[in-house]
Amino acid sequence: MSEKRNGARRQSGGPRKAQEIFDATLDLLAEKGYEGLTVEGVAQRSGVNKTTIYRWWPSKGALLGAALIGARQLELTAPDTGSLEGDLEALLHTIVTLLTTRPASDIAVSVLGAVTHSPELAAHVKDFLADRIAREQPVFDRAVARGEITADIDRMLLVDLLAGATWMRVALRQLPLEKDFAARAVNTVLNGARAAG
Amino acid sequence: MSEKRNGARRQSGGPRKAQEIFDATLDLLAEKGYEGLTVEGVAQRSGVNKTTIYRWWPSKGALLGAALIGARQLELTAPDTGSLEGDLEALLHTIVTLLTTRPASDIAVSVLGAVTHSPELAAHVKDFLADRIAREQPVFDRAVARGEITADIDRMLLVDLLAGATWMRVALRQLPLEKDFAARAVNTVLNGARAAG
Repeated sequence: MSEKRNGARRQSGGPRKAQEIFDATLDLLAEKGYEGLTVEGVAQRSGVNKTTIYRWWPSKGALLGAALIGARQLELTAPDTGSLEGDLEALLHTIVTLLTTRPASDIAVSVLGAVTHSPELAAHVKDFLADRIAREQPVFDRAVARGEITADIDRMLLVDLLAGATWMRVALRQLPLEKDFAARAVNTVLNGARAAG
Repeated sequence: MSEKRNGARRQSGGPRKAQEIFDATLDLLAEKGYEGLTVEGVAQRSGVNKTTIYRWWPSKGALLGAALIGARQLELTAPDTGSLEGDLEALLHTIVTLLTTRPASDIAVSVLGAVTHSPELAAHVKDFLADRIAREQPVFDRAVARGEITADIDRMLLVDLLAGATWMRVALRQLPLEKDFAARAVNTVLNGARAAG
């Protein structure tokens, strides 16, 4: 059982139509909120039999956890531009796109907003963010290897400053981003981290 | 009419029980969401006549806008510790308290989360944040006067990096803050802004 679930989370051992199931799960979440999300609804929208879904994910919570981590719409690949500055700018642009471009933004913004209303959803978002920051580690490993930063730099602080500022500006202040927002934010945070390190 | 409403927004010319009305408004918002918030409900909870409330705020939206800006629970005073570093750390501590200590956190976290579901609420939060950043300007004015930063520093970027990282850590990652989180975040952002400036 746990082997199956781990496999599904890595997208390697899920049912054949895993992406369709994940899409339907996130679409329904964005439309109806966590309370309105049901395995029945996911089955109907994805055209996959309900018992197949339950075979892989025993509950709505387990399904949502897998969907958040496995969904292609919420993908954050680790960029490799040759410099930490370039990589972080690329990462920030991806986050901006995720928060501002449909259909991903409908999902991302409603999921992130809804965490404050559902402790269960919040736990899945927590896992999702832990997964995503784990995938960004190569960016920092390469920067250390290139001598751009020291090994003891606080990686999570850097990511949270950048991602958080983007969330503030786009979702809460609802201001258009200046063209050089990503460059200036990365520059500020990186210079500061180097000076502090 | 507009004189009255401006007066109410500044808490100088509202009805006698303005704070009780604002309290009831934000409590109901935290409990029932924007859809569940009604002027009738506010009247009942605050013990103020409905017609009195309507006299000052012609709609639920106008009332909520005034409550967000005027509420003592969401107050962010501009600190004056003698240094920009000290002021920003104090500000960050206030934001952390706001996001983690009840009852303010119930209101703040649910309001900030709900903006993604209600464009009307989002517009009020936007005004609220604009009001709050306007009130922090003395912090930066004094820092410029003391020669700690140059006048052209991007104040909103600094505030958004700091407030955003706090939001990421507390609301989304749901991690306990390290004791020196505020000091390290301020140090990083401030050093970076100086290097860039």
